[in-house]
Amino acid sequence: MKILVLGIDGYIGWPLALDLLSKNHEIAGVDNFSRRYRVERVGSTSLTPISNRFERTEILKSNKLFAGDTIVDINLEDGPNEIGYILNDFKPDTIIHLAEQPSAPWSMKDPYCATATQSGNVIGTLNLLWAMRENAPEAHLIKLGTMGEYGTPDCDIPEGEIPIAPCIYSDISPWRPCPMSGLPFPRSAGSIYHLSKVHDTHNIIFACKTWGLRSTDIMQGVVFGLMSTDSRYITRFDYDQYFGTAINRFCASVLIGHPITIYGKGYQTRGFLPLKDSIQCINIILNNPPELGEYRTFNQFENIYRINDLASEVHLAARKLGLDPSVKFLTNPRDELDEHYYNPAHKKLFDLGYIPTTDIKSEIHNLIKSLIPFKERVCRAAILPTTTWR
Amino acid sequence: MKILVLGIDGYIGWPLALDLLSKNHEIAGVDNFSRRYRVERVGSTSLTPISNRFERTEILKSNKLFAGDTIVDINLEDGPNEIGYILNDFKPDTIIHLAEQPSAPWSMKDPYCATATQSGNVIGTLNLLWAMRENAPEAHLIKLGTMGEYGTPDCDIPEGEIPIAPCIYSDISPWRPCPMSGLPFPRSAGSIYHLSKVHDTHNIIFACKTWGLRSTDIMQGVVFGLMSTDSRYITRFDYDQYFGTAINRFCASVLIGHPITIYGKGYQTRGFLPLKDSIQCINIILNNPPELGEYRTFNQFENIYRINDLASEVHLAARKLGLDPSVKFLTNPRDELDEHYYNPAHKKLFDLGYIPTTDIKSEIHNLIKSLIPFKERVCRAAILPTTTWR
Repeated sequence: MKILVLGIDGYIGWPLALDLLSKNHEIAGVDNFSRRYRVERVGSTSLTPISNRFERTEILKSNKLFAGDTIVDINLEDGPNEIGYILNDFKPDTIIHLAEQPSAPWSMKDPYCATATQSGNVIGTLNLLWAMRENAPEAHLIKLGTMGEYGTPDCDIPEGEIPIAPCIYSDISPWRPCPMSGLPFPRSAGSIYHLSKVHDTHNIIFACKTWGLRSTDIMQGVVFGLMSTDSRYITRFDYDQYFGTAINRFCASVLIGHPITIYGKGYQTRGFLPLKDSIQCINIILNNPPELGEYRTFNQFENIYRINDLASEVHLAARKLGLDPSVKFLTNPRDELDEHYYNPAHKKLFDLGYIPTTDIKSEIHNLIKSLIPFKERVCRAAILPTTTWR
Repeated sequence: MKILVLGIDGYIGWPLALDLLSKNHEIAGVDNFSRRYRVERVGSTSLTPISNRFERTEILKSNKLFAGDTIVDINLEDGPNEIGYILNDFKPDTIIHLAEQPSAPWSMKDPYCATATQSGNVIGTLNLLWAMRENAPEAHLIKLGTMGEYGTPDCDIPEGEIPIAPCIYSDISPWRPCPMSGLPFPRSAGSIYHLSKVHDTHNIIFACKTWGLRSTDIMQGVVFGLMSTDSRYITRFDYDQYFGTAINRFCASVLIGHPITIYGKGYQTRGFLPLKDSIQCINIILNNPPELGEYRTFNQFENIYRINDLASEVHLAARKLGLDPSVKFLTNPRDELDEHYYNPAHKKLFDLGYIPTTDIKSEIHNLIKSLIPFKERVCRAAILPTTTWR
């Protein structure tokens, strides 16, 4: 299959590209390398010593299945023409779109970061959709959204659409029984970043309905872990307050004796999955494309976990590895419910054959073990939150 | 009351500003005058000979209740600083935000227009929200959305939120009864423009919840008509394929013997209201502000009408006025259902005292009569649609 990976230099993009090549897919890649310099501008760097952009380009080019001369450095936000040219030239069967600003706290940092997030993500994706309409109307767009689009409503969360829902509105007469099934499940996103993904979702639904494109929109849980620790192929690993997600930040903290910092009471519950499961799921999705004109949503996570329970697992694993972990509770810088109902569906990927690669205990243990050789690289000052939501 | 009108040079903004001054409100105004040049770039101009921007500025400045030296010419999209300065200086009690690109067909014209619409509207409003957070956290934001955000779902449409809705999801077990009330009603917008308003809605809900702002988000029906025909104060009136809404376009057509052009079968049903009712409703809203931190949605239209019925009314009124009207059905350039269920609530404004100023027959009759003196100004070539959705 011919696959175009947008955001090929990123946390998921890079190990995904290597995995797709190993499975004999022909790939091409796009990245503007913004993740690298944004992490550096907030005073951090990848905990793992990743290859630079030129080394990574050479690694890709050493494989005959890599199309083109280079990772193409374009900003999707700038317009549909450059990406349209690539689509027309490479003619991908599948486009995996990971080229978005991925941090909620970064999007809340200041108005520049807020608009850069929504403009880059929403306008970038809109340009991609327009370019697909003109140049690749039959390609399968696999788009990375987030479980955070749904927020934490006080009800069950389906996979994208409202399912069988015989609702009665009783407050206005004459008000008839009203089946809302088939409508998108209401989104209640909790940051400027999460909102950008909600906007993408609405734009993509429209593009499928009106322009006949096809797309799988992934509502992904929080990803953690590493794919490869080999020095040339190693995955980037962020642990700072902006780009480090919960488990990754916890694991980096214990390396240097920094407390595991929990925001609020730690009763927040979210969906999580290891990086290798994210890549497994994307493989399942690209091998099971939707029909032309079809838009579908997959909730992509292994299981739901409470933050406190994850912190305990990290604490336990760190002790077993001879480290000296501690836990500290911070006033929550985010605007989120501390205690809440949470029951999101995650059935579609399991129905298609998703098998979690390992249990979360072993995964966390192996992750900390893999990171120990790099512990000198952790910058203590990058970990604690300085940006507040409210 | 101190009121800042964003988009003061527009179809609603200008007559609204005059109305607010007549009611002894102190006002300030912002506009980038993009409507004027965008209409001209698509080969049309206001059917009514409106004052130019300098004449309008002088008209405003002749009233002591107009604050500042001029209509401030800024692009909200450029950042929060300029609008923030105005908020800090003028300290408005109410901000009426009409400064968005208002045309669905224009947003579908080409990728430039698509991204200009979403970037201008969504990023512009996001900058405004950020500026309010910093400089006017207690001001009441009255934001113009559209009934088109909801689309035409096969169920009743409430005012913004899902009301009492005891839903049972029966497809997944163990799946508990799920009250979705309080969540935003799902949006199914049918153009890039309508989507931009959906994105605004989600961003504003977030700003009220997380930053404690207060806002009334108006889901407005299709506006038609004129407020003043006095030569200095006259309202702009667009009738072209891009900026002319259904009734206004029909009324301009009959002036020059151009057929009333109906898209599709004409069974589409939408909410409509005369311009003077839009201004009446905005007055009601500003006199009944929400609490701090409250976000609320008002569906703002007089009643729902079928396009065919409106065309008949225009035909009838034109004949009575001695014109020679005809009707022509065109292949629908838009992607919309020709026949559909439509039952949107519009109760909140009536509960607060909204009384429709006139019946639609008289309103259409008076409108055509008011336009007859300007019939030489109609450009025939601007009326027929050339942009298709699909």
